[in-house]
Amino acid sequence: MRYTPKEELKVRRDRLQIYLQESGIDGALLCENMDLFYFSGSMQRGFLYIPAEGEPVYMVQRSFPRGREESALQNVILIKSSRDMPSVLKKYGYNPTRLGLELDVLPVTWFKRLQKIFPETEMSDVSFQVRKVRMIKTLYEINLFRETAVITDKMYSKIPSFLVKGMTEIELASRLEAFLRNHGHQGLGRMRGFNQEMFFGHLFSGVNAARLTFLESPTGGAGLSPSNPQSAGWKAIQAGEPIMVDYGGAKEGYVIDMARCFAIGTLSAKLQEAHQVALKIQAIVMQKASPGAKCSELYNLALAEVEKSGLDRNFMGHSDEQVKFIGHGLGLEYDEFPYIAKGSDFILEDGMVIALEPKFLFPGEGAVGIENSWLITSQGAEKLTLTPDALVII
Amino acid sequence: MRYTPKEELKVRRDRLQIYLQESGIDGALLCENMDLFYFSGSMQRGFLYIPAEGEPVYMVQRSFPRGREESALQNVILIKSSRDMPSVLKKYGYNPTRLGLELDVLPVTWFKRLQKIFPETEMSDVSFQVRKVRMIKTLYEINLFRETAVITDKMYSKIPSFLVKGMTEIELASRLEAFLRNHGHQGLGRMRGFNQEMFFGHLFSGVNAARLTFLESPTGGAGLSPSNPQSAGWKAIQAGEPIMVDYGGAKEGYVIDMARCFAIGTLSAKLQEAHQVALKIQAIVMQKASPGAKCSELYNLALAEVEKSGLDRNFMGHSDEQVKFIGHGLGLEYDEFPYIAKGSDFILEDGMVIALEPKFLFPGEGAVGIENSWLITSQGAEKLTLTPDALVII
Repeated sequence: MRYTPKEELKVRRDRLQIYLQESGIDGALLCENMDLFYFSGSMQRGFLYIPAEGEPVYMVQRSFPRGREESALQNVILIKSSRDMPSVLKKYGYNPTRLGLELDVLPVTWFKRLQKIFPETEMSDVSFQVRKVRMIKTLYEINLFRETAVITDKMYSKIPSFLVKGMTEIELASRLEAFLRNHGHQGLGRMRGFNQEMFFGHLFSGVNAARLTFLESPTGGAGLSPSNPQSAGWKAIQAGEPIMVDYGGAKEGYVIDMARCFAIGTLSAKLQEAHQVALKIQAIVMQKASPGAKCSELYNLALAEVEKSGLDRNFMGHSDEQVKFIGHGLGLEYDEFPYIAKGSDFILEDGMVIALEPKFLFPGEGAVGIENSWLITSQGAEKLTLTPDALVII
Repeated sequence: MRYTPKEELKVRRDRLQIYLQESGIDGALLCENMDLFYFSGSMQRGFLYIPAEGEPVYMVQRSFPRGREESALQNVILIKSSRDMPSVLKKYGYNPTRLGLELDVLPVTWFKRLQKIFPETEMSDVSFQVRKVRMIKTLYEINLFRETAVITDKMYSKIPSFLVKGMTEIELASRLEAFLRNHGHQGLGRMRGFNQEMFFGHLFSGVNAARLTFLESPTGGAGLSPSNPQSAGWKAIQAGEPIMVDYGGAKEGYVIDMARCFAIGTLSAKLQEAHQVALKIQAIVMQKASPGAKCSELYNLALAEVEKSGLDRNFMGHSDEQVKFIGHGLGLEYDEFPYIAKGSDFILEDGMVIALEPKFLFPGEGAVGIENSWLITSQGAEKLTLTPDALVII
């Protein structure tokens, strides 16, 4: 089992400290699982104080021995109650009057408790800046993406041998999930957004592609019940319909996002052509996806190509339910910065990892399209996902 | 696929309306996925307004066609933006001046947005009352638990044939997960608490039992990495050590919680005796688990028996990390009311479903214990989980 090295944690913390200094915030007090893990190497329950200058203090409530083992930070301290935080911080010379919190995820009752614990302290939101730090991946993180990509490719290479006419979507899904779990997938596909939830991804066939859902995603799927309204359902997979597998691997927390399409026997010329349009959009967008590119302009490039193809009512959803993005950042969560979206102000930077997912949904027929994960570098975008893009007809 | 019937939704809503009327709240505005699903039959993104009197209004942002199909409520309305809510509610004759929100889960930024949308409205927290309504299960829900229990029993009955000396924990886990998924498990084990996360449950063997974690749980497990610090890990399962499987089934959202212990070949007399103590605690507590029983007293009953056995340093954790509860409510989430905990004011009522989980952890050796899910009735507690309690030596 690997622990995030001390030097790696320092690189990450330094980036946040620059922002804290610039904005006059004395320190950030973080507690969301993935923010904790990113900055401390551990997601044991507690609070991580990152001062504008100096060493962070990881105050762990449970499990303390585990937090101390997992985190390479210098100061890992047991606290019995969150009320102990001000006095613990004072011992380290920290007495924040302006504190940054993750207000995008912190529940109201938690916020009120923190206000009581730090009654004289002004609270501000640092979630945007935390997410901006996490948006630029380090070399350490990029290596984890590369390992995840290898596992994910292995899974995709198994699909033609797993796929049997008449098997249900959930049968196929459970086989892929078992494969990924055996290769280190944590199971949960984490999302930061409140109420967003994800398992391994989306898998559906034919008519089930028309089923959109609560998620901020171009696809949904039938799911197993209204309490689980996405991805694989009970439908039997038939010959001649598209099967979309959008299942990302995960390794030590880092998720890869990719989708491929399969069909048994044959697939209509219309759907095959739409798949080609998706590949063309991917090529056009990624050719421009270099540092400095504006994400809204990448989105517009895609839209222009979609309009040329006449498939605008089927792009990234269908009918009145089309999402206004074509890609998103990746990391420990599926909904990281930047968003490649309508009006998005994000500018691509060296070290970002993004998923681009042009997809077309045809109610009554199915969905086709492509998704790959890419590393943005000064030399252009490097495809991290390894499986060939082509539609596979078995 | 089953949809929650209209009459069932009415029963649930009526219960919440009584509280709203009593406390002078004009209406509850709910949005958490499982609260939405419980009161509307759908978890499509949006807000459900439940007035103190009259018909609820489910305002759906995405996916509206799906929300309308899944929900048997009379008023299911498309909204483009959450800003449209006040005018939509006015059309139905609702103009709340006191609004109840789920402040235990609602992020601060969401709360601030709602304050802007309803600027003249006083906001109060109805999460406790929502959870109290959900705490008492209807006959419809109890039937879903029964179906889940049958599936879960089938999974447990497979374990002796799956277990092979030398297989890794994650290999066993992935086989059980595939079985449950094929029988309708949604994959996610939902928890309401912020930062709490669960997959299918906990599975671990021998020395890995000593690994506690961030979760409010008596057990942890090694997990696959520090980014996933619970349940199955990479350890090979050996003969002579206890293997704890705490994997709950799920059917249409409803989770069952149960644990059983297995060993290959043999298990020490000490651990077998501790298992017997757990069974005895279960018998003592459940014999008293009738409507009217105080949850803190049930907890004390268990503790008295633990002290008699001399195993108090190994109960519900070990060393300095022992949780102060022995059971919890179940439903759409694993952390429902009531808590069978130290000092818990909850009183058992007819129709509650609880999991009781007396467990002993011995660092260096392993964990033993039992968990079953029970329905509280006026005739006493009925065991919903079906698998025999005995330790299985293969």
